[in-house]
Amino acid sequence: MTKTKVAILGAGFISDIHVESYQRFIPEAEILAVYARNIGKARAFAEKHHIPAYFDDVDQLLAETDCEVIDICVPNYLHAINTIKAAKAGKHIIIEKPLAVTLEEADEMIATCKANNVKLMYAEELCFAPKYERARQVVKEGAVGEVYMLKQAEKHSGPHTDWFYDINLAGGGVLMDMGCHAMGWFRWMLGNAKVKDVYATMSTVLHGGRTKGEDNAIVIVEFENGVTCVAEDSWAKHGGMDDRCEIYGKGGVIYADLFMGSSALTYSREGYGYAMEKADTSAGWSFTIFEEVFNQGYPHELKHFIECVREDKTPLVTGEDGRAVLEMLYAAYASAGQGKKISLPFHPKVDRPIDLWLNAKQD
Amino acid sequence: MTKTKVAILGAGFISDIHVESYQRFIPEAEILAVYARNIGKARAFAEKHHIPAYFDDVDQLLAETDCEVIDICVPNYLHAINTIKAAKAGKHIIIEKPLAVTLEEADEMIATCKANNVKLMYAEELCFAPKYERARQVVKEGAVGEVYMLKQAEKHSGPHTDWFYDINLAGGGVLMDMGCHAMGWFRWMLGNAKVKDVYATMSTVLHGGRTKGEDNAIVIVEFENGVTCVAEDSWAKHGGMDDRCEIYGKGGVIYADLFMGSSALTYSREGYGYAMEKADTSAGWSFTIFEEVFNQGYPHELKHFIECVREDKTPLVTGEDGRAVLEMLYAAYASAGQGKKISLPFHPKVDRPIDLWLNAKQD
Amino acid sequence: MTKTKVAILGAGFISDIHVESYQRFIPEAEILAVYARNIGKARAFAEKHHIPAYFDDVDQLLAETDCEVIDICVPNYLHAINTIKAAKAGKHIIIEKPLAVTLEEADEMIATCKANNVKLMYAEELCFAPKYERARQVVKEGAVGEVYMLKQAEKHSGPHTDWFYDINLAGGGVLMDMGCHAMGWFRWMLGNAKVKDVYATMSTVLHGGRTKGEDNAIVIVEFENGVTCVAEDSWAKHGGMDDRCEIYGKGGVIYADLFMGSSALTYSREGYGYAMEKADTSAGWSFTIFEEVFNQGYPHELKHFIECVREDKTPLVTGEDGRAVLEMLYAAYASAGQGKKISLPFHPKVDRPIDLWLNAKQD
Amino acid sequence: MTKTKVAILGAGFISDIHVESYQRFIPEAEILAVYARNIGKARAFAEKHHIPAYFDDVDQLLAETDCEVIDICVPNYLHAINTIKAAKAGKHIIIEKPLAVTLEEADEMIATCKANNVKLMYAEELCFAPKYERARQVVKEGAVGEVYMLKQAEKHSGPHTDWFYDINLAGGGVLMDMGCHAMGWFRWMLGNAKVKDVYATMSTVLHGGRTKGEDNAIVIVEFENGVTCVAEDSWAKHGGMDDRCEIYGKGGVIYADLFMGSSALTYSREGYGYAMEKADTSAGWSFTIFEEVFNQGYPHELKHFIECVREDKTPLVTGEDGRAVLEMLYAAYASAGQGKKISLPFHPKVDRPIDLWLNAKQD
Repeated sequence: MTKTKVAILGAGFISDIHVESYQRFIPEAEILAVYARNIGKARAFAEKHHIPAYFDDVDQLLAETDCEVIDICVPNYLHAINTIKAAKAGKHIIIEKPLAVTLEEADEMIATCKANNVKLMYAEELCFAPKYERARQVVKEGAVGEVYMLKQAEKHSGPHTDWFYDINLAGGGVLMDMGCHAMGWFRWMLGNAKVKDVYATMSTVLHGGRTKGEDNAIVIVEFENGVTCVAEDSWAKHGGMDDRCEIYGKGGVIYADLFMGSSALTYSREGYGYAMEKADTSAGWSFTIFEEVFNQGYPHELKHFIECVREDKTPLVTGEDGRAVLEMLYAAYASAGQGKKISLPFHPKVDRPIDLWLNAKQD
Repeated sequence: MTKTKVAILGAGFISDIHVESYQRFIPEAEILAVYARNIGKARAFAEKHHIPAYFDDVDQLLAETDCEVIDICVPNYLHAINTIKAAKAGKHIIIEKPLAVTLEEADEMIATCKANNVKLMYAEELCFAPKYERARQVVKEGAVGEVYMLKQAEKHSGPHTDWFYDINLAGGGVLMDMGCHAMGWFRWMLGNAKVKDVYATMSTVLHGGRTKGEDNAIVIVEFENGVTCVAEDSWAKHGGMDDRCEIYGKGGVIYADLFMGSSALTYSREGYGYAMEKADTSAGWSFTIFEEVFNQGYPHELKHFIECVREDKTPLVTGEDGRAVLEMLYAAYASAGQGKKISLPFHPKVDRPIDLWLNAKQD
Repeated sequence: MTKTKVAILGAGFISDIHVESYQRFIPEAEILAVYARNIGKARAFAEKHHIPAYFDDVDQLLAETDCEVIDICVPNYLHAINTIKAAKAGKHIIIEKPLAVTLEEADEMIATCKANNVKLMYAEELCFAPKYERARQVVKEGAVGEVYMLKQAEKHSGPHTDWFYDINLAGGGVLMDMGCHAMGWFRWMLGNAKVKDVYATMSTVLHGGRTKGEDNAIVIVEFENGVTCVAEDSWAKHGGMDDRCEIYGKGGVIYADLFMGSSALTYSREGYGYAMEKADTSAGWSFTIFEEVFNQGYPHELKHFIECVREDKTPLVTGEDGRAVLEMLYAAYASAGQGKKISLPFHPKVDRPIDLWLNAKQD
Repeated sequence: MTKTKVAILGAGFISDIHVESYQRFIPEAEILAVYARNIGKARAFAEKHHIPAYFDDVDQLLAETDCEVIDICVPNYLHAINTIKAAKAGKHIIIEKPLAVTLEEADEMIATCKANNVKLMYAEELCFAPKYERARQVVKEGAVGEVYMLKQAEKHSGPHTDWFYDINLAGGGVLMDMGCHAMGWFRWMLGNAKVKDVYATMSTVLHGGRTKGEDNAIVIVEFENGVTCVAEDSWAKHGGMDDRCEIYGKGGVIYADLFMGSSALTYSREGYGYAMEKADTSAGWSFTIFEEVFNQGYPHELKHFIECVREDKTPLVTGEDGRAVLEMLYAAYASAGQGKKISLPFHPKVDRPIDLWLNAKQD
């Protein structure tokens, strides 16, 4: 079996997760190279994961390796430039969320990939998380009848890395970071139905000293098919990661909880090494998570893309889906600024999605 | 990469699980052949799973294929004979629980494997189930201090296949089928500490019309290190599979629940295809399980054995461990018969472990 | 001890709950009389609960009994008229939610009670439900730091009684029936802070054949103190009653679940008499609730009012609070109609709150 | 209404619980007097609870007050002497668990109460705990078919008060303190069926420096009707009180959890006042209990006894039941000493039940 050659851009938290997924679960891929802006960080990452090459220059990586797939795990503001470079170099691309900072970037990324005839997959792992996917299956089997409402929440106490808090680099706060998951999952559950309108409220409750971005948000999305969806996203919730969905149908309901709802329950007087993502402590009661990477669906997601590349298939989640999510985030920011529903399609020109909220607040 | 060649003996429920594990998670192995006593069943299994060869004769399978590993998933009474054949043919062996029906068989199996210089792994998947393994890790990190009590329970409403209920074929009832998991896991958690004595009580509460075997049992095991362990096993518990452990230490406690504690919670008026193993129905509230095979640890277990074969390492769980478990089951049956603790070592001569209970009951 | 004399208006579901509360937990009160529009229903209720007198005429009840307290449990459209009659007769009044159908009614009720110097308590039992009150206490102790978000959900599959579905009698759908609980509880948690604005979305998903009212609603309330609150209310959720709250603070979080989160978990092949309110079935898995009346806070609430009457104290929840809740419901209906936040104070003239939604929809 | 006059013996933890029960929920009783061995403690208790009289001499209390009911909440070794005094004084008696230290005491207590024609109620609150009672009801309705196994566990990290750890005063360790609950509840669930035999294992794992008594125990009770019961009791389990039961029937199963299973779930960075009984901390995740006294059934239990006194009825749980529980505890200690089942009836002569274990261990 020849292996599909992958290079990873980025050497942070999410890159670790991708590498674990490839190395444990996707034998048909091999990681040839890693890029980080800091060469020391690139080298350390390569050594830790036994990756043969490392770079601090994407052009050099593209020129000097024969990778077929570029897996983009860099900060938001570097998504477009690297996607475009990789596409022009003829590489297939899988890219972490959100697709881009602006819709213009998104459009250019999609167009460039098309022009260069390379695949572009938008890596929304909730579309592959096994508990959620199992829920989606039983919905398709009719378990809850016709769906009329979906909820999805993702909450923790805030990222560790600085760039998330810099709205120039991230384009916004928790909505850009985590709200995109809910938006992507709603569309996935509804067969990419069309969004009618979006309402949002948001605020900065915990990290005001560190960011101008929102760290708590509620978004209501109404789809043309009549389904109402509610997203809750927060960087202000203590006690560890929370990732839940609720599916309401005319014949039943499903509750799925990825973290607390799959963990062992531990009481430790002295504490121990690690309970779960963003848990402040492991002393006292804690929810001890296991096989986090697998249970969030990263291996399933990446395996799917490698299969698409090897068998020349279209990914289930594409750049267009990523763009649709970004449009919903634009609408959410604008809605929070204006205090009313924003109808889609919606394509104002802004440098950062969050300006649609911040600028309205200043008025 | 050359693949390690595996043949599977058995074409039932557990064989399906092993095949899913190999095919999805263990690319370094390939399944060459399957054996079933009924050739039609063997052929159907082979076709379903794209296995190139099928047999209703183990000798023929051993002679005609160049497999390196025999994975034994046949009923208990066929464990010894097939292990011995495979060992004499120079094959490495991984065998489902329980290791054998009698201690004499177990001794012969172990000796034959040694004599033929082949590996013998006792496939106790609870030693690999990721939630339980995560719990074991945090115990090792000191999360609960010194352990003083362990509990493990496995319960459902009874197997589907007939031979489980025939004590001539199975050697006993739920203890042989499921009690072995608890015994194996206790030893695993305690670093294969020595058992001091075993007490058990058991009865036939639900399936008396179908079996002379026990379908409900409580076993207390006291280890020489002072740790007390309690196993609960049942074929008489409705509402789906239950597999839980509790770990009590002087500095804390861990509760881990493999099935209900990892599932989505669904209410379905009409019901749907499948909720979890042995759930009677999926209508009303149900606990919707996902990635069952992975979360029970089968891929981790089989991957470990394939690695042992490829890298010539000793399995973490061996035939000797399987024998030690069987000795505990002997002691449990004798204890239930005599109403008192049975000290180990314990090696009475019987044809079937359950006779130690049944014969005492008749007195 | 002389007992405080109470008459109950209404002989339905909620009247049973009040009577159980008085008779088991409030010995300082005695129920003298019951009124129902149907004399047979009144008599049956009186006999069932050993109440000495029954009436189908409120004026007669007021004239012929020497009750001091009128406990109003009749349908919404009869709230104002009976409150005003009782107040004019010099009776203290405790009234079930919502306070009234219109703000004009509410104003008249409050004014009449004041003019006649009688107490008017708005019976919001969530302000007394012991689990929620315990949560409120620990919040006051600083358990979660400064609160920034509250959520409250109440959902089941729809009332049994017809008048709830008739918007002429109820004034609206699930918001009037259950949304008022969330609104009342938000204010209670926040010390009756002022509401800045309300946003809502609603739809009729399950009971469209039976009502023009909404049976599913999401309401976002923003308070002047910066706290964001989210209410979810539904008559379209199967599997029994759901009543939950979530309290988010800058130093922690509390999740409280009144029904599923306090029940025993039962699997019954054959089913049994009653699992919990609005559970469709007790076969299969069910959440078996206990001491429902107590755990929802009815005895605590009624005991408080009897104490107010006996000791001449002001109730903790008054007619003004009920009016404030109703104003929030008005704003929610208007918001759902207009697709934007509605700022408070808000007092449009309508016959039924739901017209603010229905009329906007027709435009 | 004349009130039934009650005097309480004891001024500790459980006396507080009884007083809260009487004062909030049993208006037909009034507490006239309290006794404690230390007069300062008696006075402080009386002042705290507005009890008119306090004593440090039981004889004086019996002579000087006209109470009709003596509620005995003193340490185990004072149960017999005070019961006998109260009975001879013609008082009805309700007594906390265990009934007595020895069977001889129990026999004398029962006989003296009979001779003096006073009622003797054994206060097993689990027979009245509303969640457990609800479970018992649905079992009687047939929810789980014929019961074949019961489990009951009560665990925390050890009492605060010293006498519990002194086997001369308590007669034993956690079995005397908490194991009696399980024994009482098993008999209650099974209509006081006859016990066939008892097996137990026990050890001192956490409090060896403070007590010779067992602080961890497993007891298996087999009833003549074929039902197997398992009790788990511990003073060595951290993280707060655990009180659970499981009911297994041929047609279903019920799980009921009194503490964690009825609480709110709180994450508090800073901690707060009180989470639940014996919780070491309220920082981090905690299970916030509410209405503890009510939900454990104390008001229901005491109300029942007051009703028995007022209406001259026989208590549902009598001195004979308390004696039967004590006999089971004797058998458990003897079994743990001898390593075998002990058949009932069983009445060895010992000063302290625990001697049946300790003396056998010394052999």
